[in-house]
Amino acid sequence: MTVSHPVAVRWSEDGPAVELLDQTRLPGKVVQLRLDSAAGVAEAIRSLRVRGAPAIGIAAAMGLAVEVAAGAGGDAAALRRRLDAGHELLRRSRPTAVNLFWALERVRLRALDALGESVAAAVSAAAAEARAIAEEDRAMCLRIGENGLSLLPEGEVRALTHCNAGALATGGIGTALAPLYLAHDAGRRVRVFADETRPVLQGSRLTAWELGRAGVDVTLLVDGAAAFLLQQRQVDLVIVGADRIAANGDVANKIGTYGLAVLARHHDIPFYVAAPASTVDLATASGSAIPIEERDAEEIRRGFGRLTAPADVAVYAPAFDVTPAALITAIITDRGVVRPPYGPGLAGFAHASPQAGEPAGVEGASDERDAQ
Amino acid sequence: MTVSHPVAVRWSEDGPAVELLDQTRLPGKVVQLRLDSAAGVAEAIRSLRVRGAPAIGIAAAMGLAVEVAAGAGGDAAALRRRLDAGHELLRRSRPTAVNLFWALERVRLRALDALGESVAAAVSAAAAEARAIAEEDRAMCLRIGENGLSLLPEGEVRALTHCNAGALATGGIGTALAPLYLAHDAGRRVRVFADETRPVLQGSRLTAWELGRAGVDVTLLVDGAAAFLLQQRQVDLVIVGADRIAANGDVANKIGTYGLAVLARHHDIPFYVAAPASTVDLATASGSAIPIEERDAEEIRRGFGRLTAPADVAVYAPAFDVTPAALITAIITDRGVVRPPYGPGLAGFAHASPQAGEPAGVEGASDERDAQ
Repeated sequence: MTVSHPVAVRWSEDGPAVELLDQTRLPGKVVQLRLDSAAGVAEAIRSLRVRGAPAIGIAAAMGLAVEVAAGAGGDAAALRRRLDAGHELLRRSRPTAVNLFWALERVRLRALDALGESVAAAVSAAAAEARAIAEEDRAMCLRIGENGLSLLPEGEVRALTHCNAGALATGGIGTALAPLYLAHDAGRRVRVFADETRPVLQGSRLTAWELGRAGVDVTLLVDGAAAFLLQQRQVDLVIVGADRIAANGDVANKIGTYGLAVLARHHDIPFYVAAPASTVDLATASGSAIPIEERDAEEIRRGFGRLTAPADVAVYAPAFDVTPAALITAIITDRGVVRPPYGPGLAGFAHASPQAGEPAGVEGASDERDAQ
Repeated sequence: MTVSHPVAVRWSEDGPAVELLDQTRLPGKVVQLRLDSAAGVAEAIRSLRVRGAPAIGIAAAMGLAVEVAAGAGGDAAALRRRLDAGHELLRRSRPTAVNLFWALERVRLRALDALGESVAAAVSAAAAEARAIAEEDRAMCLRIGENGLSLLPEGEVRALTHCNAGALATGGIGTALAPLYLAHDAGRRVRVFADETRPVLQGSRLTAWELGRAGVDVTLLVDGAAAFLLQQRQVDLVIVGADRIAANGDVANKIGTYGLAVLARHHDIPFYVAAPASTVDLATASGSAIPIEERDAEEIRRGFGRLTAPADVAVYAPAFDVTPAALITAIITDRGVVRPPYGPGLAGFAHASPQAGEPAGVEGASDERDAQ
């Protein structure tokens, strides 16, 4: 895998620090932040400098590890206080990001365990655990890519995607974009069409940027042009990420996904969902049980820094939609490709979730709540 | 008809002048312009202060009439020069607006004819012809509204529309919005959902504004949310305008229209097109013969005054799409409602077009090329 994709977050080579690509500055400016405290990372998460559930989890884990490292010169009691304070600070940075909670918990437990031995051991264990979380995510993306590769057409690959389920949302090459990166890396001709994805424009700001940066041929379109693109037979497949996958295969994802699935079916074009197996929430029987958040109406009335609609107009602003399993050609995960009927295949992912035991709400790579 | 809809353009009650609602200032500001020269009106058309093919035609006709009126104190030769210069100036204001050409020609020919009698007669004839064009358009909208009314469900009416095919695009109550205005006027509960309509946002800037102003319950949504809205059974019908209707019933309209038609069919919701009979271009056999213009990529890369995508990213930016007749439940015109198979019904509109004799390219109420 030699894909030169951008890296959302990484452990610095020189010294305990988190290197983070400031996504609020994209696509205009590429700004690398170097953060050496839990407070700095918490601010970056709160301010959406890093977004996408997996990337947030990694950033938080590394943020706690650098906080612990800053206490290397003190005693065990001080380190314990530092660990608890950093954990609390980071935990509050995005209230709904489940990946963030479990990533923090992993680092905290490992550090506490090693603290029984020595402060130095705790510092080392925290850093090792944070890097392990990043490495696991990188490997997960790669497996999704490899599993998805077999579904791409022979020869040229022309795909339509929505939102950002790419490198910028994860610790690796993304989920929906992973097979496309691998095909490009293998020297195949890959052409990606990216919906701009109103209201928050993750497609134009992030997907178009990261693919272009990696040398993948990318073309941007407004969401309303996708139907015409499919009618003109300009793409061979549609591929998107997922926020949550119900036990029956219904998929919640960024608003606009369901419409693409209907359009793909109408034009007899495959519609794929790519996500970590941990996105499957077996506690949710079907899509109708997934609560749909509303976004802030102001994103639609004045989402571009100036008023583009009547200031007081009513707005219908669902953050996600639900695509029925019947419209999905296959679900590509790090544990394999699942095809209809989805129930039996997805049931095999029991305990795959790092959040096993959580009451509900497993999150995947392209979480709206974390997408900003 | 007591609907208090906004008026895009009108002849001033006091003195020869054109009163024009500056649509470039909407929705933030309501600015009425009072223009008394062809140059002033030409600038307003060029700058998109007035848009929508019918409204442009009316504005141009009135612009030529006020120009002629300014020559009331001179001789016939001077009036003739003034008429020709004004005609030329206005004709060049929007190169592709066919309504503009025929409206100007009507005023020019009537004025020339009357000039044989006297300068005063020419001044009077030009004004009368311009006002007649406006009145014909007003009546045309009303007939579309009345014809469409019978297709609306009993009781509450919940409709989804796209772009702006309303009062702001015409000399009356619009085309797609006409039946909805009439239902509202009749005291029925009407709820309109308006797609924002990227890239130029006619839905949020214009449709949401004019409906709200008229007291019609309107809700704005991003284009990508329309599918979910239909899935949730929140609307009873979809109704849009048309740029051009081919002899077989295929409809070219603002990008995004075709996707709505597919979605309406998938959800078994009626999909109506409302347009003047003059929009039917019998010289175009089917939609595949309609050339599709590309819009400026910058509208998508930085359409809101700031860069929202990589500055050099490739963009797919069709201005229109083509909806196959098979997806259209009915076409509502001022000359009646046409249902499938469309060929025979539409053929009856031969010579309905004011542009009869033009090589091709009849334009309707919601012309993208005139929508800005």
